[in-house]
Amino acid sequence: MQSRQILQKTIDDAFASAGFFHNPPELYEPIEYALRNSGKRLRPLLVLMGCDLFGGDINEALYPAMAMEIFHNFTLLHDDIMDRAPLRRGKETVYKKFDINTAILSGDTMFVMAYEYIARTNPIVLPRILELFNDTARMVCEGQQYDMNYETTVQVTHEDYIQMIRLKTAVLLACSMKTGAILAGAPPEETEKAYMFGENLGLAFQLQDDWLDVFGDSSKFGKELGGDIITNKKTFLYLKALELAREDTLIRLTQNFYDKESPEPEKVARITSIYRQLKIDELTRKEIEQYLRKGLQWLDEINIGEDRKTGLRELAREMLTREK
Amino acid sequence: MQSRQILQKTIDDAFASAGFFHNPPELYEPIEYALRNSGKRLRPLLVLMGCDLFGGDINEALYPAMAMEIFHNFTLLHDDIMDRAPLRRGKETVYKKFDINTAILSGDTMFVMAYEYIARTNPIVLPRILELFNDTARMVCEGQQYDMNYETTVQVTHEDYIQMIRLKTAVLLACSMKTGAILAGAPPEETEKAYMFGENLGLAFQLQDDWLDVFGDSSKFGKELGGDIITNKKTFLYLKALELAREDTLIRLTQNFYDKESPEPEKVARITSIYRQLKIDELTRKEIEQYLRKGLQWLDEINIGEDRKTGLRELAREMLTREK
Repeated sequence: MQSRQILQKTIDDAFASAGFFHNPPELYEPIEYALRNSGKRLRPLLVLMGCDLFGGDINEALYPAMAMEIFHNFTLLHDDIMDRAPLRRGKETVYKKFDINTAILSGDTMFVMAYEYIARTNPIVLPRILELFNDTARMVCEGQQYDMNYETTVQVTHEDYIQMIRLKTAVLLACSMKTGAILAGAPPEETEKAYMFGENLGLAFQLQDDWLDVFGDSSKFGKELGGDIITNKKTFLYLKALELAREDTLIRLTQNFYDKESPEPEKVARITSIYRQLKIDELTRKEIEQYLRKGLQWLDEINIGEDRKTGLRELAREMLTREK
Repeated sequence: MQSRQILQKTIDDAFASAGFFHNPPELYEPIEYALRNSGKRLRPLLVLMGCDLFGGDINEALYPAMAMEIFHNFTLLHDDIMDRAPLRRGKETVYKKFDINTAILSGDTMFVMAYEYIARTNPIVLPRILELFNDTARMVCEGQQYDMNYETTVQVTHEDYIQMIRLKTAVLLACSMKTGAILAGAPPEETEKAYMFGENLGLAFQLQDDWLDVFGDSSKFGKELGGDIITNKKTFLYLKALELAREDTLIRLTQNFYDKESPEPEKVARITSIYRQLKIDELTRKEIEQYLRKGLQWLDEINIGEDRKTGLRELAREMLTREK
């Protein structure tokens, strides 16, 4: 089994030496900017770990791994336009730094680049990898649409929300795991288990993000708390609160949530206090743990030696305790 | 050889029965709208004709053919945002009818759908088809970037313009022809000739578009003449005029081109008159004929019976004489 540090370094080196810059510079400079500012690179890591889990050659998985990261960053370019998000990982988003047209077209080009890396896959498994990637990309688009719909939909349940983040976030982590497994030559029933591990991990990951946004430690989180509350995002936390709140609390919750008058920190403090009163903190932690447990159960099911699973177990545990 | 009518009908039937609609409707309704309002469907026709030219089975080429049309329409969704174009084929553009976010995300989904149709290709040739499609998609993005750059670049030559339309328009026609040829099992040197035929046809096609916009018959063209002049588009016609005009004519040309005061019909009439004075009409026709001739020379070179080439020869000739 390869250590996570080695896999992470392999990915970072591949990105550092890839040379994404071409002509015209107006098109490729934003791409370099986006990929240089890339975050944890969790998706390519899952491809390599999924491949390594089944004893595959990680060098054969490196290009598809890069495809996942480039695809993910393409979706961020377009999502940030749609969500009017000014910042991403502490830096200006592409559409803010450049302009909307640039973010659209450089995004499209990154989407092509993702497919270029997918195409550099062993031809024997290419049809399966391509089909999986297509299915996933389409689901991610659908997830983003549901996310936008929910901004204006009155009746959204926390189940709707889970279904939305499954599409928008979790399936790409699932796809990454399964891609690695396919490349390692794992049989279909095993690749499916890898997929389910990734999907549940993805759900836990996104819920952890939502939780950190309200209950995190802002000095470690790297940004102000309550961003989702300020932008009226109907997260799991808000939807769960909405379902549990009664009478006065329900009125206070909705009034404060749609309050446009008060200073933002006051709004955040009031909503956070209602969340605590309704025990949304613990409820969300339980939900996270539940998805993580499900994910780990799928990992248990995988028919391979326990020693090969250590890295993924560690990664999953870290997700539950991460603070940024 | 299959008649063009049969090939066209095969394509239209395939689109009519494809069922592009899924959930959520906010995502897929604009896609249906865009694909229903689809134009001549020249690109899928070229895939089928390219396949038929080499005696291939057009049923094997139908999905990749659809991919080209869906990809083309995806680029229109995004281009229309970037170009702020209100109308497309006499109807509201997607971003006007819906909104910018919808045009971005439905466009992205169409891009995925194009790849889904590409993926439904015989696995033996899939790697070649996918690589060609990726190369082409990237060039189309680069072409759009050059097109946008030229809006603000002072020094653009007519050669720059040709290079831009080669990327933005011609390579997709070339890719369509070559895809058909590959699917028919044509040898590499023959598929390359098919590509060059398509590329030159594409250049002639775009120049004909530019010519029709100024010198067409507006009753047949289906829209008002002079759209490119009104929007200050630096077409082949304008760039050629700029290179040929001297002294007074040059001053009149640039003054009228950047005139924001006069009523639009007056501006169009003045620029058209300068074009006629500089014989831009004939010069552009000669340029179109030159590319068409080059294209037909590549068709001559293809090592296949003359009788199989009739359809493509006819299509190419029609392009030179089309009025809309």
